[in-house]
Amino acid sequence: MKPVAVVAGSSSDLSRVQPALDCLDDFGVPYEFRIFSAHRTPGALEAWVASLEGRGFGAVIAAAGWSAHLAGAVAARTVLPVIALPLSGGFLQGAEALLSMVQMPPGVPVATVGVDGAKNAALLAVEILAVEDVQLRERLWRFREEQRQAVLKADAELGRKL
Amino acid sequence: MKPVAVVAGSSSDLSRVQPALDCLDDFGVPYEFRIFSAHRTPGALEAWVASLEGRGFGAVIAAAGWSAHLAGAVAARTVLPVIALPLSGGFLQGAEALLSMVQMPPGVPVATVGVDGAKNAALLAVEILAVEDVQLRERLWRFREEQRQAVLKADAELGRKL
Amino acid sequence: MKPVAVVAGSSSDLSRVQPALDCLDDFGVPYEFRIFSAHRTPGALEAWVASLEGRGFGAVIAAAGWSAHLAGAVAARTVLPVIALPLSGGFLQGAEALLSMVQMPPGVPVATVGVDGAKNAALLAVEILAVEDVQLRERLWRFREEQRQAVLKADAELGRKL
Amino acid sequence: MKPVAVVAGSSSDLSRVQPALDCLDDFGVPYEFRIFSAHRTPGALEAWVASLEGRGFGAVIAAAGWSAHLAGAVAARTVLPVIALPLSGGFLQGAEALLSMVQMPPGVPVATVGVDGAKNAALLAVEILAVEDVQLRERLWRFREEQRQAVLKADAELGRKL
Amino acid sequence: MKPVAVVAGSSSDLSRVQPALDCLDDFGVPYEFRIFSAHRTPGALEAWVASLEGRGFGAVIAAAGWSAHLAGAVAARTVLPVIALPLSGGFLQGAEALLSMVQMPPGVPVATVGVDGAKNAALLAVEILAVEDVQLRERLWRFREEQRQAVLKADAELGRKL
Amino acid sequence: MKPVAVVAGSSSDLSRVQPALDCLDDFGVPYEFRIFSAHRTPGALEAWVASLEGRGFGAVIAAAGWSAHLAGAVAARTVLPVIALPLSGGFLQGAEALLSMVQMPPGVPVATVGVDGAKNAALLAVEILAVEDVQLRERLWRFREEQRQAVLKADAELGRKL
Amino acid sequence: MKPVAVVAGSSSDLSRVQPALDCLDDFGVPYEFRIFSAHRTPGALEAWVASLEGRGFGAVIAAAGWSAHLAGAVAARTVLPVIALPLSGGFLQGAEALLSMVQMPPGVPVATVGVDGAKNAALLAVEILAVEDVQLRERLWRFREEQRQAVLKADAELGRKL
Amino acid sequence: MKPVAVVAGSSSDLSRVQPALDCLDDFGVPYEFRIFSAHRTPGALEAWVASLEGRGFGAVIAAAGWSAHLAGAVAARTVLPVIALPLSGGFLQGAEALLSMVQMPPGVPVATVGVDGAKNAALLAVEILAVEDVQLRERLWRFREEQRQAVLKADAELGRKL
Repeated sequence: MKPVAVVAGSSSDLSRVQPALDCLDDFGVPYEFRIFSAHRTPGALEAWVASLEGRGFGAVIAAAGWSAHLAGAVAARTVLPVIALPLSGGFLQGAEALLSMVQMPPGVPVATVGVDGAKNAALLAVEILAVEDVQLRERLWRFREEQRQAVLKADAELGRKL
Repeated sequence: MKPVAVVAGSSSDLSRVQPALDCLDDFGVPYEFRIFSAHRTPGALEAWVASLEGRGFGAVIAAAGWSAHLAGAVAARTVLPVIALPLSGGFLQGAEALLSMVQMPPGVPVATVGVDGAKNAALLAVEILAVEDVQLRERLWRFREEQRQAVLKADAELGRKL
Repeated sequence: MKPVAVVAGSSSDLSRVQPALDCLDDFGVPYEFRIFSAHRTPGALEAWVASLEGRGFGAVIAAAGWSAHLAGAVAARTVLPVIALPLSGGFLQGAEALLSMVQMPPGVPVATVGVDGAKNAALLAVEILAVEDVQLRERLWRFREEQRQAVLKADAELGRKL
Repeated sequence: MKPVAVVAGSSSDLSRVQPALDCLDDFGVPYEFRIFSAHRTPGALEAWVASLEGRGFGAVIAAAGWSAHLAGAVAARTVLPVIALPLSGGFLQGAEALLSMVQMPPGVPVATVGVDGAKNAALLAVEILAVEDVQLRERLWRFREEQRQAVLKADAELGRKL
Repeated sequence: MKPVAVVAGSSSDLSRVQPALDCLDDFGVPYEFRIFSAHRTPGALEAWVASLEGRGFGAVIAAAGWSAHLAGAVAARTVLPVIALPLSGGFLQGAEALLSMVQMPPGVPVATVGVDGAKNAALLAVEILAVEDVQLRERLWRFREEQRQAVLKADAELGRKL
Repeated sequence: MKPVAVVAGSSSDLSRVQPALDCLDDFGVPYEFRIFSAHRTPGALEAWVASLEGRGFGAVIAAAGWSAHLAGAVAARTVLPVIALPLSGGFLQGAEALLSMVQMPPGVPVATVGVDGAKNAALLAVEILAVEDVQLRERLWRFREEQRQAVLKADAELGRKL
Repeated sequence: MKPVAVVAGSSSDLSRVQPALDCLDDFGVPYEFRIFSAHRTPGALEAWVASLEGRGFGAVIAAAGWSAHLAGAVAARTVLPVIALPLSGGFLQGAEALLSMVQMPPGVPVATVGVDGAKNAALLAVEILAVEDVQLRERLWRFREEQRQAVLKADAELGRKL
Repeated sequence: MKPVAVVAGSSSDLSRVQPALDCLDDFGVPYEFRIFSAHRTPGALEAWVASLEGRGFGAVIAAAGWSAHLAGAVAARTVLPVIALPLSGGFLQGAEALLSMVQMPPGVPVATVGVDGAKNAALLAVEILAVEDVQLRERLWRFREEQRQAVLKADAELGRKL
């Protein structure tokens, strides 16, 4: 199975990225997690991104807040699918990060998930890997079924039928 | 090569979705384009989405404006990667579609691109297919190189060096 | 009296939906409250909505946050009046849910109330039932009179007349 | 069949309200259309609203732009369901009207549709009348079926199947 | 000296209106403070507003949040200057109240101050009364001078000169 | 009758300020109209504002767009009522001017009208002058009556009664 | 005099950047204008930025729209003052570019001007160069005086004094 | 080395401006910190700004919230580079201050940093002074290197390599 590369722009982002790492662990998907800043360590970021295709990675998750350029900086240097995870924390509660990430110019796409949507970022990476991996796709369907059962259980416990 | 499924919510969305179809054509990626509405043809949409994995599709692009539920309605019924393409046209120029699409609840992800970002939606689909397709990845790198040359040409023509 | 169907997208929404249930209780309007997610349990939601007209319901209240597709998913499958109750909780404090709900495409309407406006959602349902129910309409007018008296009492206690 | 009351705040709003009147005509629902301003003719508006229940109306549609107080001014004086139709035209393209209308205080609800959503306002009124009118409900289902067929036809003509 | 009329839409608004009452007290300007809701007590509000010119009031301050129609409802029934005081509390922190108040249609003006700007609402009322009252204008200038001294004192204490 | 001072920040604002001048003419209120920029001619603006109280003016209207500091710069140097008229033209269609004007710090109020609300700015000035001018107040009531008649005429012509 | 480096992200930005080049020409400030994209030509951009300090430049202007990462990408690789010029063109009329540029993380500043504020970007560069250049500062004061005279002339021609 | 002038609009802004003063201290850049309000002490502000060029200052930082006119009021009276620091605190969390500052009219620029971006405001001032000061530029590069090392250390400690 191809591993997933996860990068955050700052150590302070770790708690909001953790659900992505946990989700990858739950699916048994190997990953590398790194901290690189597009603005403070552009060279180290660039070198790391340049290594990803050769090292066999299948997708990248880039998490950042504020003027969130990280996902774009990654996408500029790889043709792997790049998942942009905007983080809250700025004065607009993440709207600035969302807009910084999602409005990429034509030709260099990123796949943006919701603000602080770490779990969905990881699930999207798993879905991408599962395109060619039947077993992983089955795991995704089991996960969906578990979600379904959890809602039905909540309905059974809290719903009030006529 | 796995084909890409493209769905738009209305015939009036066609012109804004066309750049995605053109881009897939340019990369030689087969696709099926359909018009289904999450609100007007929920049953037909559901049946079509349910068929996609069995028919071997590799990714889905869902384009919609206004209360843009289409991508979510697709994602609810498949574990294929779903690319959400918000379209302008509403009173907030597409911001309502962007927010309707990007803020999916945890567990059911979509990969959102920018408002009217049809070309990037297609490129993202190609990148997803290219994870396991070396030739397609090479084509993506050639495309990137063409983009790079176009900017360098513009710089050579319009730039004013000291 | 026709009962009202109330659905929330998640068990975590219950506390913000409770004022709607309390208000229906106050008016003696029977209701069924269920938890179904447009994205996690689309099939169960669809089956439930399909049963509502036959079971004699008079209106539906659908409460959801984030990419709040629930009201639209209900409205796509019934011609009963669907009241959309956007919930806060997302990074835009409910603005994303409001926009996801209110901007439905022409042909499939929902009746949107304010963010976290659970009480008004219930009152709207009561008003709809009261169109053909003289006694219920009289109760609504008594409720309005109680509201009026409460403001006049506050004015008498806190106002400072010249 | 109970008639629908439609009120707009200004003669300049007529073109954007017209789709609501056309839709009511299509469904054979009788209506009265009036022009009253919450700010310029508060007395005439009040007298008209006060007459509606006695004259047997079943719902009210109130259309206004800018500081769109019209729906609230109507709702303050009737317990009929009041449908708020925010109109574009202000500097925020209707967002100001939407917010002025949708965020009513608890106790006095309005049912808000999308900006310039005149057709949906009318359909919502028809749905409310159809709660107790089996024939009207059947007409609504026929309308939904026509919509469904229109999308399927567009799909058949413009779709490209694999 | 003409008194100022102050009205709030709810008893829960009192704490945010209090700075206006305190400021009027500081300037020795008589006022009447009342609680009336545009939506819950439209009749009582209307009767009160109709009495103001005859009772010799010189300005009105109307404070409200959410769909803040109160100032417009007052302005519709008097040609006294009406000062609109938008209150926070809604899901957009007062932006909805600001927009509901400030975008009045041509012909019925209100004078809007900032969100929760109770003190400025009162000062504006005092300035209006001071147009024809030399002593009150002198008091306003003394207040400005006190403000100026307070800033200069802060500068003297906290500034760090080179 | 005290004259009204009107100032715009740029000659390009003239067309959007003109309705204010026309309205003052209609009411027979004398006015002085000047062009001064808070940023380009701060000294000239300051000297002019300093002269207004001595020259007997009763109110000031300040119209500006973009970072609309003009009203605040005027209000900082007079205790006359200052009416802030935000103009569209910036990238946010006047929202930036509205926010620049309306959120004045406590102690220095301005009376803000809607974006491009020149007529209302003038009417507000007339209302302020009319506080102590019975004849002008009567003219305002006649204007209101004319407005009322215009709406009733539109209703008579365009309304469709049952 | 140190030259100014100007970079735009795309040839389509040229018309909106031109006022900056014209302004530098007016002040006799030498400049180099280049077209490099942070996403399409990251390597060429990086090499160019790395050369700027050694080639004696005094400031950089970076103009971009959409997810406007250009200024940040420049600032990450130089300690010269970087002026960020957000361009309109995206679905939020430049708000997305403004937010992408202005909210840089602590440690890597950019100096942001208004949307499409090319002239001000150039003037800011001139002001920076003028800190140590008495003649250039005098030219800036002459420019300010010309602006002042232009407003006073407009006032003389269009103003209406009492 | 030329000193930096720092001005805040209120003593309550001090805690949010402090990181700018600390940063200037860290770089050994002398500064003067003052408290002046554009609206409460316009004369004192003006006199102080008028003195800055003669006293040899090299840049000005102006910090303010709400209708943040301070930076514009400074820029109107000097051709020194003026850095605008918008502060949070208003109902839009600083967005109102950002918009009030950044959208200056053509001809009078300010250099805006992010909301509460005090450290970046100071770094921008240092960068401006460093244009002609080789030693200061070297210090900036050392600061950048320290930042880089801090990120690499965080990566070494928290990263999880494959």
